[in-house]
Amino acid sequence: MAQQQAEDDHPPSPAELFTRAVALLTAQGDLRVWSVIISVFGDLALQRDDVITGTLLTRLTTLMGLKPEAVRVALFRLRKDGWITSRKTGRSSAYRLTDMGFRETQAARARIYAPSLPEPDSWQLLVSRPMVQAARVQDEKALQEQGFHIIGPGIYLGAGDLAASEEFLAVDGQITHLPDWLRASMPPEGLEQGFADLCARLRDLSALLDGDIPALDATERATLRVLIVHHWRRLLLRQPNLPDRFFPDGWPGVACRERVMALLHRLERPALDELQETPG
Amino acid sequence: MAQQQAEDDHPPSPAELFTRAVALLTAQGDLRVWSVIISVFGDLALQRDDVITGTLLTRLTTLMGLKPEAVRVALFRLRKDGWITSRKTGRSSAYRLTDMGFRETQAARARIYAPSLPEPDSWQLLVSRPMVQAARVQDEKALQEQGFHIIGPGIYLGAGDLAASEEFLAVDGQITHLPDWLRASMPPEGLEQGFADLCARLRDLSALLDGDIPALDATERATLRVLIVHHWRRLLLRQPNLPDRFFPDGWPGVACRERVMALLHRLERPALDELQETPG
Repeated sequence: MAQQQAEDDHPPSPAELFTRAVALLTAQGDLRVWSVIISVFGDLALQRDDVITGTLLTRLTTLMGLKPEAVRVALFRLRKDGWITSRKTGRSSAYRLTDMGFRETQAARARIYAPSLPEPDSWQLLVSRPMVQAARVQDEKALQEQGFHIIGPGIYLGAGDLAASEEFLAVDGQITHLPDWLRASMPPEGLEQGFADLCARLRDLSALLDGDIPALDATERATLRVLIVHHWRRLLLRQPNLPDRFFPDGWPGVACRERVMALLHRLERPALDELQETPG
Repeated sequence: MAQQQAEDDHPPSPAELFTRAVALLTAQGDLRVWSVIISVFGDLALQRDDVITGTLLTRLTTLMGLKPEAVRVALFRLRKDGWITSRKTGRSSAYRLTDMGFRETQAARARIYAPSLPEPDSWQLLVSRPMVQAARVQDEKALQEQGFHIIGPGIYLGAGDLAASEEFLAVDGQITHLPDWLRASMPPEGLEQGFADLCARLRDLSALLDGDIPALDATERATLRVLIVHHWRRLLLRQPNLPDRFFPDGWPGVACRERVMALLHRLERPALDELQETPG
């Protein structure tokens, strides 16, 4: 895309520029509509009482190339799953997050927008009693929900301030060696490629937008922000919530985060009021 | 034995008392002669240059009921294995520990005579990379020699000041939970019964000697000391070198240590010179 732009005889119009930017962020064509809608709420509905109108949702999703029918199905599913509620006002609808939906998006925001994950004051390493696989799976699930990470069979690592059952041997202190084999084992399969692909797309997007951002209106900025946040969070939340030093050297998630933060800084978040007042 | 004494019509003579005391400490009849001789050196040869004459060795081992032929075989084996050297002086021999022998007995003394094992300033928990059993056995051997304890497959605990390979995940800090299952797993099979048996024998010995110790001469005191130290170290050195809180509640090793310390305090160690000058 950046190359195509360089080959053009004239600079792109603001409309062309936005179209190309959206194309860069939707090129893989794999947007899950219900998940994109959560990204809309996550990036734009920061206050507990924030409401997003059906009109705005339609406008944003249309600019992303999503079909109105798919959006309707997704909204139905999100209501059914307890993420959002809707309210009719005249001929249009207004949506807001449920308590659960707000809690979840707020928890995710703490990771999504963090410039980096700070080290906790201390770490704790837990060792479980020897047990059969089936019992261990239950432990693993419970401990992961508490914020622990599985290091090996019956071995869990977490921040020092997490409460741990007295069933475990627990050593609380500093990590003095963090070996390469552990860092290599941290990311799930496929995540490295995912981050590398997103990183490349965001590099092209940065080049495309270079200097031209003032030409984008609030709705366009919101559209691009939501798409960036969407791709970023879909990868980031698959990665263990650990500081960068827990991942292999040159881990593309680190460069990816820098690009995301820089782009979100440049594509300033429009206020929800400003977006809703914009005529569709 | 204490019961037998109580049933007697008159208090035992010093000679009877000593005979009964030795009988209490040799009742199980399982003394390994070469190991008893190491206990003699360990309790009596505290200085690097200390020499023990064949005459004294014979006198002590005879009082313990060991056969001269068995003692000769044991001395031959100890020389062959590099524990002791011998030197002829006139018609008798004199023995001393080799460098290795002195190093080993000195290291053991640090445990044998310690009234309790202090907590280190910090602990470290190591986690190894996943590996096959055969490779893990090598790790386990090397780490145990360094002073680490095996907590589970590929999991090692040691004092914070031990050097650890960077191959391991290492957390250095305080133990915040020490679960019952781990304390129960610490002692090797049979050790609890061994300590309980020794504890009972030492209780009977304390009762037997109560108030009568001034009647024992230096050689008799040395004989009893060596037998006590011998039984104690044979059990103690099988137990992981960890503070008492790492063992199950009511662990008999703790009461046993108290009895050993009290008896060794009462049976004051004679100087080696005093013993060697005593006519056989």
